[in-house]
Amino acid sequence: MASLPTNEVEVEARPLQLYSCTVRPEWVDYNGHLRDAYYGLIFSLATDALMDHLGLDAAGRARHGGTLYTLESHACYLLELHEGAAVRVHTQLIAHDEKRLHVHHALWADELGAPAAVGECLLLHVATAGSPRATALPAPVMDAVQRLGRAHARLPAPPHVGRAVGLQRKARVAA
Amino acid sequence: MASLPTNEVEVEARPLQLYSCTVRPEWVDYNGHLRDAYYGLIFSLATDALMDHLGLDAAGRARHGGTLYTLESHACYLLELHEGAAVRVHTQLIAHDEKRLHVHHALWADELGAPAAVGECLLLHVATAGSPRATALPAPVMDAVQRLGRAHARLPAPPHVGRAVGLQRKARVAA
Repeated sequence: MASLPTNEVEVEARPLQLYSCTVRPEWVDYNGHLRDAYYGLIFSLATDALMDHLGLDAAGRARHGGTLYTLESHACYLLELHEGAAVRVHTQLIAHDEKRLHVHHALWADELGAPAAVGECLLLHVATAGSPRATALPAPVMDAVQRLGRAHARLPAPPHVGRAVGLQRKARVAA
Repeated sequence: MASLPTNEVEVEARPLQLYSCTVRPEWVDYNGHLRDAYYGLIFSLATDALMDHLGLDAAGRARHGGTLYTLESHACYLLELHEGAAVRVHTQLIAHDEKRLHVHHALWADELGAPAAVGECLLLHVATAGSPRATALPAPVMDAVQRLGRAHARLPAPPHVGRAVGLQRKARVAA
């Protein structure tokens, strides 16, 4: 049987694991835990790893003349993390269109049985020649996004997706 | 006319300006702009400044045996910021209850006529003796929160409040 063309290889229906690190001492705040913004830095670095995975590493950005900008993000901080904790990010593509990706990250620590935080971001493809302008993803990147999207469409939506900040938490989640 | 007791002094109906800084070189990413997570760090440091303002500085935290944890956050990244940009945060209390604060930050840069980013966070008061547990704000802090809340209730809600990440942006904003 002939093998499939490379860009038709099936992607497994499980979150990507592209980024891991250790909680650094300078990321810990006066409460003795990882500061909220550094959960965000770990998610941001995991988004960089996703860009590399999809062909938008430095070479791909130069070749295609485009990059991703973050438009929006949301995070829930669920468990405390301490200096030295080994953490890894599980990344799931929630949705995409021709220019945008909606990405979900879950931050796992070896010693915890549940995510320490979850985050979402909305990423926009921007052409970098001249003034930055939103533009369609280049074809090879779009191929990779579509294959990942087909695989991740078979995963359940993570529970915090689409959540908004507010005191009326149940009402917001239900909206 | 007798002067009001100190804790009855009226708070002005305008956002607080408690934190400013300059964009550091190590906060800039490969796109040549402030990395998303470092907008978050600036908002996080502005939240620290709000805690100081409300009497939950290091001395207050020790005296009351409590601190604030961030439960959740959301941000919209609106304009690019470059190394060396002088930025300041405008902070508005959106809502509160006996244990929680919903806070909105807007990040302004001197050279821009609109916010470069806006962020929201949900903060929970936690007693730190023994295992951390959610507990009511101590009375002097609650007095300061209530005065600020009465003043900021006279301000319009910022346009991005309550927004959720998603591709269906208009539908989400309307929800």
